[in-house]
Amino acid sequence: MTSDCLYAIIACASGLGFLVILFLNLRIASVKVSDTKAAKIASAIRSGAMIFLREEYKIISTVALVIAGLLAYATQDLYVPAAFLLSCTISMFVGFVGMRAATGANVRTTIAARDQGESAALLTAFFGGGVMGFAVASFGLLGLGIVFYFSSELSHFVQIITAFGAGSSLVAFFARVGGGIYTKSADVGADLVGKLGIPEDDPRNPAVIADNVGDCVGDTAGMGADIFESYIGAMVSSMILAISANADFNIVTLPLILSALGLVGSAVGIFFGYFVKQAPAALLRNATYVAMTAFLGYAYAYMSYMAIDLVYFVAVIIGCVSGVAIGMITEYYTGGKPMVDVARSSVSGAATNIIYGLSVGMESTVFPVLFLSGATLIAFNFGGGLFGVSIAAVGMLATVGITMTVDAYGPIADNAGGIAEMSGFDKSVRKITDGLDALGNTTAAMGKGFAIGSALMTSVALFNAFAQQAGIIAINVIDPKVLAGVFVGGVMPFLVSALTMRSVGDAALKMVIEVRRQFKEIVGLAEGTTDPDYASCIAIATKAALHEMILPGVLSILAPIAVYYSLGIEALGGLLVGATVVGVLLALMMANGGGAWDNAKKYIESGELGGKCSEAHRAAIVGDTVGDPFKDTSGPALNILIKLMSVVALLLVS
Amino acid sequence: MTSDCLYAIIACASGLGFLVILFLNLRIASVKVSDTKAAKIASAIRSGAMIFLREEYKIISTVALVIAGLLAYATQDLYVPAAFLLSCTISMFVGFVGMRAATGANVRTTIAARDQGESAALLTAFFGGGVMGFAVASFGLLGLGIVFYFSSELSHFVQIITAFGAGSSLVAFFARVGGGIYTKSADVGADLVGKLGIPEDDPRNPAVIADNVGDCVGDTAGMGADIFESYIGAMVSSMILAISANADFNIVTLPLILSALGLVGSAVGIFFGYFVKQAPAALLRNATYVAMTAFLGYAYAYMSYMAIDLVYFVAVIIGCVSGVAIGMITEYYTGGKPMVDVARSSVSGAATNIIYGLSVGMESTVFPVLFLSGATLIAFNFGGGLFGVSIAAVGMLATVGITMTVDAYGPIADNAGGIAEMSGFDKSVRKITDGLDALGNTTAAMGKGFAIGSALMTSVALFNAFAQQAGIIAINVIDPKVLAGVFVGGVMPFLVSALTMRSVGDAALKMVIEVRRQFKEIVGLAEGTTDPDYASCIAIATKAALHEMILPGVLSILAPIAVYYSLGIEALGGLLVGATVVGVLLALMMANGGGAWDNAKKYIESGELGGKCSEAHRAAIVGDTVGDPFKDTSGPALNILIKLMSVVALLLVS
Repeated sequence: MTSDCLYAIIACASGLGFLVILFLNLRIASVKVSDTKAAKIASAIRSGAMIFLREEYKIISTVALVIAGLLAYATQDLYVPAAFLLSCTISMFVGFVGMRAATGANVRTTIAARDQGESAALLTAFFGGGVMGFAVASFGLLGLGIVFYFSSELSHFVQIITAFGAGSSLVAFFARVGGGIYTKSADVGADLVGKLGIPEDDPRNPAVIADNVGDCVGDTAGMGADIFESYIGAMVSSMILAISANADFNIVTLPLILSALGLVGSAVGIFFGYFVKQAPAALLRNATYVAMTAFLGYAYAYMSYMAIDLVYFVAVIIGCVSGVAIGMITEYYTGGKPMVDVARSSVSGAATNIIYGLSVGMESTVFPVLFLSGATLIAFNFGGGLFGVSIAAVGMLATVGITMTVDAYGPIADNAGGIAEMSGFDKSVRKITDGLDALGNTTAAMGKGFAIGSALMTSVALFNAFAQQAGIIAINVIDPKVLAGVFVGGVMPFLVSALTMRSVGDAALKMVIEVRRQFKEIVGLAEGTTDPDYASCIAIATKAALHEMILPGVLSILAPIAVYYSLGIEALGGLLVGATVVGVLLALMMANGGGAWDNAKKYIESGELGGKCSEAHRAAIVGDTVGDPFKDTSGPALNILIKLMSVVALLLVS
Repeated sequence: MTSDCLYAIIACASGLGFLVILFLNLRIASVKVSDTKAAKIASAIRSGAMIFLREEYKIISTVALVIAGLLAYATQDLYVPAAFLLSCTISMFVGFVGMRAATGANVRTTIAARDQGESAALLTAFFGGGVMGFAVASFGLLGLGIVFYFSSELSHFVQIITAFGAGSSLVAFFARVGGGIYTKSADVGADLVGKLGIPEDDPRNPAVIADNVGDCVGDTAGMGADIFESYIGAMVSSMILAISANADFNIVTLPLILSALGLVGSAVGIFFGYFVKQAPAALLRNATYVAMTAFLGYAYAYMSYMAIDLVYFVAVIIGCVSGVAIGMITEYYTGGKPMVDVARSSVSGAATNIIYGLSVGMESTVFPVLFLSGATLIAFNFGGGLFGVSIAAVGMLATVGITMTVDAYGPIADNAGGIAEMSGFDKSVRKITDGLDALGNTTAAMGKGFAIGSALMTSVALFNAFAQQAGIIAINVIDPKVLAGVFVGGVMPFLVSALTMRSVGDAALKMVIEVRRQFKEIVGLAEGTTDPDYASCIAIATKAALHEMILPGVLSILAPIAVYYSLGIEALGGLLVGATVVGVLLALMMANGGGAWDNAKKYIESGELGGKCSEAHRAAIVGDTVGDPFKDTSGPALNILIKLMSVVALLLVS
């Protein structure tokens, strides 16, 4: 293949992506916001989200500029810091685009549910998520394509794309941790306020807008940056492995081509969802499967045509299958028998609910890890060695356009329900949005499985790229230094989890105190005649999130540097292994445990085991509240921690 | 040194140990049980404990005989299975001796508190713990000495002592898991019953005797078997390392000699406690320090006299210091500011209490792991290489006589309080026993820190012994097979924790149902005019514990075998690394989180933050109940899991 041909493919695929984004935005805008109250609430949510994003981006930009300066100084080169800053900019821009769409689609989903019924509402939320999905895929591909265009001939190309990967990691970490702390401090705060007799979604609850903003900044923007990072990380690490092996041009560019083909496949999937009428659950699922099938077809055609060794196609299949399989296991633990066990255990109180939830979370790590280990081994043995392992990660993430769409759909549906409630819409509207929201919980579980699966595969790929670049043949754990590195690496996920969980707890407590103050001081609030001061709650969440995201971020960047300079390069490899193993396990436990608690509460609310307001329900609320920071703050932060540390290590040695 | 001289030292030291045991038993027996009701209760506890022990030992013996048969078949040798069975027998016998003393000392502590006051009560409980401590040390030393006597000249001596280590691991795992499930199903059950308005220690509570039995079988017998295993494991692994390095007789026998000197030091410590009058807290602490100082003095004298390289003395010091330091860190997290934070967080409900408790548990892993990693590196670099690392483990465990004494003191004091309550003794008696019990909680935290620290060091030593025996120079984590092994190893602690936590939950639920049944069906129970059916609760806990300990045990033994035969020997090394890192971190989190929850509840009960029956107290009870299986079932099971898997691996390759 010529390089012109490559650029043409990248340009076409990302151009198609931009057209899809335009189309989706037009479809969303076609729903008119015909209700003043709903419009007012939606605008409060949007402005809260945008304010947070602006403040967050200020901090991230400052850190990014400092690091870019250090990179320029250390490398005496401008390409490296430029690639780093380009990636940071794209990641933040993608977050902005996706967030705008999500905060426009939420209220329109509510309106569509009222005026046109379930399927229109479903499509509106689905399209809202689609903007984020396609933004991640198109801008990511285009960005890496641009870097390739300008620097693939340079001798330090590996350094440059590593810097590009590092930029996405940096933004992802802060966006995930900051967004995660924001969303859960508001959510936990709103839950705790529930004990005062004010439901979570009640317009009298001063934390309610902050809670809805949180869904956007955590689950939409945070998740987008997370997946963007995996997407870039998988491509970058496989390109590095190919380059280290002196592979030819067709192999080095394979990750880019596969991602381009995956983007086209995702477009097929989303239009399938648009044109083929089907039940909501089927739509989300089938769109994914159709996209994946189309992608696999294109990939096979391309690789046959170019006479690329088909072992790599095996690796691609392994990646796709693993993503789906991990998603299914996640669904089982968060929606199947284990979840029902957690619900049952609530009958005897909060303590047993917590014990069972933790137990389910821990057990749920077993099959995904065994499965991913097996997949990695198969990809290694039958999919073309280490490069095959990284291609499996690329394959898993190639259809990110559609998987991210399904993922970002969830918080929009959740928000839509809140808006319906606060605007005083008819109960039938709430029923539709509740149905869509429940579906979103399942897809979110699937999305989290995907995020963890891709994080694992990407970090294994990054780890191998690191070893190649460092020129080390063996990282020997019998060496006490390496073993010490493994232990230090293993500690990091525990430390980051501890810090982020406590941050959520602290911020939630402040939120509760503020809400109590408002109920005491604002006359007419309890009766619903005066509006609460939503802004002060938003300010609390914003401040806490921005303040508390710094320490874990700095520690995660410093740990690899400290180990490298004190114990050496092999110990740094040990650090990555320890962090990856412990991080993946903890992240799985937290995501699935949290999901099981959440759904167990919903299961009881659906009328089982005594229903709402029973003793079991009260116990289940405790579990749900504990699960909130598990699944939406600490767990996701770990996915990025392991990639961030790998990228920092890679940067250190290249 | 001649071998005669070695045997003389071992015989003298263990003989001294037996004399101490005799003396302590006589001192305990000198307190006459002058109260019929207390005597009746104590005898119910003792018979419950003995019944459980008998049933448990039946199962363990069956498994042990099967394994011995397999060993005989595989090795075509009788020494190997004989050493294995000898070790099993000694471990069980030690558990029996320690348990008898503990179930005799508990009631006598109550009586001494009533008739003679605090310091007599303290000494009675202390001596009760001492029997377990000195039994572990003396029988362990003597047993390994006997094995050395009969087989040190044989070519497969390494195999034989590995089998001896494996026996202690097998018993330890079952005793810890079985005892842990027993004690916590009874405790959680009794806690949950508290919600019916019946306090935990109330004689009308049918689960109360089972709860007291649980303290004995879990915290006394289980802990004893656990520490016994570390003690043996440390000696065995360092002897193997010395033999692999073709070291001379004085070096190979150094672990035995150090343990003998530690036993003498422990005797000095216990008599210091007996003769020097001091406050309870000071006594427990000073006895440990005196014993350690004496031991270090003897060790220095011996090594100088024998002209043994003093780098190994550095290793011994590192071991002792590490044990104390980990204990101090544990004390800080379970009794210092972090614990108070957990108590404060209870004010806003159970959810925040759980979030903070988990966060404290996670954070508490950081310093111990960094410290132990540093200690291991120092021991390696300045204490004589890999053998130095294992000698540090031996040094940490040499004074096991006294550290185990302090540890086993806790449940006796706890039991004493329960007996005082049930026998209707004056409140002043209860006040004394409560004080001793509270002290026991701190020392138990220290003991757990010790157990984890020694488990880590022992398993690092075992791991190195494994690598030496397997003749592998490198366990390279870049190899995907090894990495897969690391992941599978990392999953095991999560799986074992999940299983054991659920077992406790299930059994506790059964217990609650049974208690509710009794209150419904037994006329006069609520009024206190009829006795409850204690035996049925004991039967539930016994059955659950024996039934549920099998699966985790079998999985832990099979996992290394499966990985060895499917992925090879390097992957088996990876498995050990993964299991050790994850196991140590989870065990620390569980032990310290559980301790912090427990003490936060007690802190509130002492009148802080609203005191008993406040909302904060109710929230703290939830945390305490969750912490119970954390700190006394799952966490401790992990200490043994990592050692058991290492020993199985060692057995596979030798």
